[in-house]
Amino acid sequence: MGERASRRPAAGSPPRARVRDLGVVVGDLPTGPHNAVTDVPGVLVGHTTVDDGAELHTGVTAVVPSHLGPQRWTLPAAVYRGNGYGKLVGSTQVDELGVLESPVVLTATLSVFRAADAVLTYLMGRRPDAVSLNPLVGETNDGHLSDIRRRPVTEQHVLDAITGAAGGPVAEGCVGAGTGTTALGYKGGIGTSSRTVRAGGEPVTVGALTQSNFGGVLTVRGVPLPADELIPERDRTEPAGNSCMIVVATDAPLDARQLGRVARRAVFAMGRVGASYSHGSGDYAIAFSTAPPTRPAIPDSALDPIFAAVLDAVEEALLNSLFTATTTRGVGGRTSHAVPLDAAVRRLAAAGRLAPPA
Amino acid sequence: MGERASRRPAAGSPPRARVRDLGVVVGDLPTGPHNAVTDVPGVLVGHTTVDDGAELHTGVTAVVPSHLGPQRWTLPAAVYRGNGYGKLVGSTQVDELGVLESPVVLTATLSVFRAADAVLTYLMGRRPDAVSLNPLVGETNDGHLSDIRRRPVTEQHVLDAITGAAGGPVAEGCVGAGTGTTALGYKGGIGTSSRTVRAGGEPVTVGALTQSNFGGVLTVRGVPLPADELIPERDRTEPAGNSCMIVVATDAPLDARQLGRVARRAVFAMGRVGASYSHGSGDYAIAFSTAPPTRPAIPDSALDPIFAAVLDAVEEALLNSLFTATTTRGVGGRTSHAVPLDAAVRRLAAAGRLAPPA
Amino acid sequence: MGERASRRPAAGSPPRARVRDLGVVVGDLPTGPHNAVTDVPGVLVGHTTVDDGAELHTGVTAVVPSHLGPQRWTLPAAVYRGNGYGKLVGSTQVDELGVLESPVVLTATLSVFRAADAVLTYLMGRRPDAVSLNPLVGETNDGHLSDIRRRPVTEQHVLDAITGAAGGPVAEGCVGAGTGTTALGYKGGIGTSSRTVRAGGEPVTVGALTQSNFGGVLTVRGVPLPADELIPERDRTEPAGNSCMIVVATDAPLDARQLGRVARRAVFAMGRVGASYSHGSGDYAIAFSTAPPTRPAIPDSALDPIFAAVLDAVEEALLNSLFTATTTRGVGGRTSHAVPLDAAVRRLAAAGRLAPPA
Amino acid sequence: MGERASRRPAAGSPPRARVRDLGVVVGDLPTGPHNAVTDVPGVLVGHTTVDDGAELHTGVTAVVPSHLGPQRWTLPAAVYRGNGYGKLVGSTQVDELGVLESPVVLTATLSVFRAADAVLTYLMGRRPDAVSLNPLVGETNDGHLSDIRRRPVTEQHVLDAITGAAGGPVAEGCVGAGTGTTALGYKGGIGTSSRTVRAGGEPVTVGALTQSNFGGVLTVRGVPLPADELIPERDRTEPAGNSCMIVVATDAPLDARQLGRVARRAVFAMGRVGASYSHGSGDYAIAFSTAPPTRPAIPDSALDPIFAAVLDAVEEALLNSLFTATTTRGVGGRTSHAVPLDAAVRRLAAAGRLAPPA
Repeated sequence: MGERASRRPAAGSPPRARVRDLGVVVGDLPTGPHNAVTDVPGVLVGHTTVDDGAELHTGVTAVVPSHLGPQRWTLPAAVYRGNGYGKLVGSTQVDELGVLESPVVLTATLSVFRAADAVLTYLMGRRPDAVSLNPLVGETNDGHLSDIRRRPVTEQHVLDAITGAAGGPVAEGCVGAGTGTTALGYKGGIGTSSRTVRAGGEPVTVGALTQSNFGGVLTVRGVPLPADELIPERDRTEPAGNSCMIVVATDAPLDARQLGRVARRAVFAMGRVGASYSHGSGDYAIAFSTAPPTRPAIPDSALDPIFAAVLDAVEEALLNSLFTATTTRGVGGRTSHAVPLDAAVRRLAAAGRLAPPA
Repeated sequence: MGERASRRPAAGSPPRARVRDLGVVVGDLPTGPHNAVTDVPGVLVGHTTVDDGAELHTGVTAVVPSHLGPQRWTLPAAVYRGNGYGKLVGSTQVDELGVLESPVVLTATLSVFRAADAVLTYLMGRRPDAVSLNPLVGETNDGHLSDIRRRPVTEQHVLDAITGAAGGPVAEGCVGAGTGTTALGYKGGIGTSSRTVRAGGEPVTVGALTQSNFGGVLTVRGVPLPADELIPERDRTEPAGNSCMIVVATDAPLDARQLGRVARRAVFAMGRVGASYSHGSGDYAIAFSTAPPTRPAIPDSALDPIFAAVLDAVEEALLNSLFTATTTRGVGGRTSHAVPLDAAVRRLAAAGRLAPPA
Repeated sequence: MGERASRRPAAGSPPRARVRDLGVVVGDLPTGPHNAVTDVPGVLVGHTTVDDGAELHTGVTAVVPSHLGPQRWTLPAAVYRGNGYGKLVGSTQVDELGVLESPVVLTATLSVFRAADAVLTYLMGRRPDAVSLNPLVGETNDGHLSDIRRRPVTEQHVLDAITGAAGGPVAEGCVGAGTGTTALGYKGGIGTSSRTVRAGGEPVTVGALTQSNFGGVLTVRGVPLPADELIPERDRTEPAGNSCMIVVATDAPLDARQLGRVARRAVFAMGRVGASYSHGSGDYAIAFSTAPPTRPAIPDSALDPIFAAVLDAVEEALLNSLFTATTTRGVGGRTSHAVPLDAAVRRLAAAGRLAPPA
Repeated sequence: MGERASRRPAAGSPPRARVRDLGVVVGDLPTGPHNAVTDVPGVLVGHTTVDDGAELHTGVTAVVPSHLGPQRWTLPAAVYRGNGYGKLVGSTQVDELGVLESPVVLTATLSVFRAADAVLTYLMGRRPDAVSLNPLVGETNDGHLSDIRRRPVTEQHVLDAITGAAGGPVAEGCVGAGTGTTALGYKGGIGTSSRTVRAGGEPVTVGALTQSNFGGVLTVRGVPLPADELIPERDRTEPAGNSCMIVVATDAPLDARQLGRVARRAVFAMGRVGASYSHGSGDYAIAFSTAPPTRPAIPDSALDPIFAAVLDAVEEALLNSLFTATTTRGVGGRTSHAVPLDAAVRRLAAAGRLAPPA
């Protein structure tokens, strides 16, 4: 099996773009420097792509809060289950204790338990005395393109994604846990975005990373871009819904209950890009805060800027996941097509939804 | 206090329209005959409007399943709390037992308990031996236009809405519980819509009724219609969020758990019209099924058509609630402006989002 | 209708006792000075008893945190629904925002909405500008002894309970919301207890107040005291379950999530006194913290002493509610008998479960 | 590593007994023929014990509903999280869809993901086309006696427990997932019990199987049997709480919502045996129904006999888990002592809590 190094674009793909580079602007809030979840200070992202060019198109993506360490083994966190048809590992303990104590790892459905076990290996290595550890591992079903029943994700893949995680720009599209996903009729993948706002009198950053893999009709800033029209030759055997995993990080000092409110809005944002919220799609959001416990709490009445940031960042992350993904031919000869950038841009321009060039 | 009879348009208002009559088509599923929640057989709607033309702009709207009676005192039901900043009465028992045993009544925030007590009066009249009854009463805050602290809703208002409920076309806009609400920068109100689909091999109807009263930027089929642009003179003191109550009825044979899935999607649909899902907005959905218990259950794997119907019907009901509402001057001299139909239609036409005239 | 002043024992009743005065000691944690919820500094209790000696045996009990005021209009709080067959008012907003903003009021089932409306009156009087207020009002069904369908609780009854609330010893048994309740085969009522423990290095107080009205077999420190044996002549028409409302107050600095954990244990404690947790019993716990926001949080790992205190205080409060209640003849000639103290003491002594006299 | 065959008592142990054989009778409902979860027709139990007599005392227990097969790949089910400090795998999908689609497997905390992956192997073998499968795997922490960080449970162990599952009598005590657990100050383990009742006019069976591993003071039918008194030499380093997993099976035709009500009562039953419900104890119950979908539903108003059966069966299963377990010396030289039967019986007899010999 060939494995591409993490965070490198697929060789030979046509040029892809983040939507903002195409002139698509989601809302009027400023982004962070990289327009990525890594704009939240100390939040790192790593991918391991497992792609043999034939039957395997899968991988692992890790969102790693580097704040977890001997000074502090937990961060406030919450999980929201928008549609619980999924195998998210670790949620009941997050519900009860309101904390995250591991990197957030994403992978393919049938590999989720091996990935969780690998996270245990990682955590046990860091905490030699711990006998109870709660990995948080999400999954979506990439079986349309990848031979999911082979459970190809190994412990090393997971460890590589975690230990190779870095700040700065984040590879998007067909990478890591997004290698084999499909969304809204097109090739999906990993996407990310961020916003900076003021809340409770302080500047805060909200970052989102998404693994897109769900049904509906792609809608960009209100303009529908139906795959049935843009890709007439497309394969319509694609499942109606598979799942969407959304990770939201913030340095705003939110507690677990407030992060639950944030996580709900992350799932609400899926509707903006045309999600059908179908039965078969396990749609979950995980939100955590990296703020030091000493930072004064933000009252709920000051949360609206954060909620707005979440809605916008998740929407843009989802769009990025599609616009950066590349056409992929997978198992069984099934092909998932990338959003055709030219056609998309033409339609968006015609609808007046592109920003003028800077 | 002057009280207008139910289901009559406000005198002297400019002509208003349901969005479908303007050429706005939400999705491609067929509507029921009245495009209203009353298309679900046996579901009735009644309004009592409490409007003194000055300080009071409020009322009561009742969705009455006529199926409740000596043959059957409960229907399967569920409540979803999208954002629980609200005083919905009756939800914990619905959560536990999965049933509705009263009309669903909507009113203004501070009147909700008087309304619930009035529903008790109604129910006790029908069930002389009952010592435990669970009214389901929702509310949104119409205090921007109405002197909410006067708690003007009386028992008789509630009884009138319930006992006057009827099938067929439903009055929308500034009527009943929508008399004083504002939404997305405009005058909000009551709206309704329906869809018919096949699920589990059988035709079923899904109807929605909404009390719109929440923040965001009005978006019609992807086209933003910002009140700041269309109503330059508008009052910007309006609260960021107030609440949205959504009632979904269906004759599909769904159990309480499935109706919970339906209710979630009703709140998800708010994003389609531009909801900001703000902190202060108590966004709830109530879903119930009128199907006789003998009708075979629909498996979850067959729910997607129903989910699609819910998303579309709620979206259209929300749009109807604004497009049928009329400019209202309320307490403190504050005015909430109706969506200007001409400007809206121009923008929608320019964006190519209007259907050709039939 | 005759209304007895609050916190006065019923005239002519045989002597009743709190269980600790009989030698029953629940656990080994120390109680507060009054062994009452009022041992939590600033927590007050008021009752209005509505008892005409014939058909009405009901009332109102208010637990009033005096901390609510211009300096601070909310306290962290949580509600746990052990069995949601009940009409608790106000829970969804507590779930969402994690705060209490009103006294906690208890009353009879069909009076719960009038009581909630009365709490609104109280709150509006204190907050002249507020347009959104969330009363938290619980209920149990005292219809076995009281003509519940008359809804006899008035606004004034509720205002009297709230404004008459005081610290110090708390009247128990057939008083306030416990006037007409029955539990475990005997006359139930209001009971209270408290514990002091150290948590997170600081002394904290946990207080409980209960409205007992549920089925099962009375069990005192493991010794069953079946009403069928102790009161051979008893009326067996009593419903299997009615409800139990439990209010837990603490000055420990807990957040809403932690208070949810506390509230769960309050319902768990019902099993210790023999609760059958039957279908028809709406069993809820409400927990709130009076700690100033500046007090450092207690980590979850330090909660066990608080959990132990909750279990013991609720158990003792439930026992007190029965042992202080007096035989009551109610509507329809139905009689609910008090626990016979002599027989109970004899059995407990024989089982070696009474502490030696001090 | 030596692995003992399943369902065989540890060699050389003093005689152990199920509590009913000692004269302890929990409630007055009849048991099924084996007083075991296997009394629910078609429910099988299998254990794999992993015990090297030194550092490893762990294993796997599987509750296998043989009803799952080509005719029917799911059963109605629910999970209740009494205290979510645990890593239960599979719960969110059960919450959403209300179904169980795998055997319920129990094991040790850090082995839970390997066990879940092994359940996948099992399920994939049976369903060659499935690409989405939801194992339900619970865990408790047996690290006090077993070197839990070695994660000794293998795929084969899990497959053996599942495929070796059988009906009839169930091995209890130090077997399978109970090999290394401790509870209430004593050696814990696996226990089971059942009850038969009539509900909705039909006879139904309720069976429970428990993995006991939690803190508190052992209490048998109200009589405390403190380990500190009965085992003066005992090791007091034992953690305050570890977890309790409870599996409830029934052939009553209950839907997922009703099974959620059942599952709650299973956790409530822990209080009867003296559970402290401590912070660190992940206390979960899983309930499923084996009734064919054609069997008429039981109304909620007829559930009380089932609730009573659950409370009694879980209580007796927990007691059996301790009374059948044997003293175990584990990793680090720590010893967990069995309940001393003679002393326990003496105390119970003195308290009059033993049934007369038949």
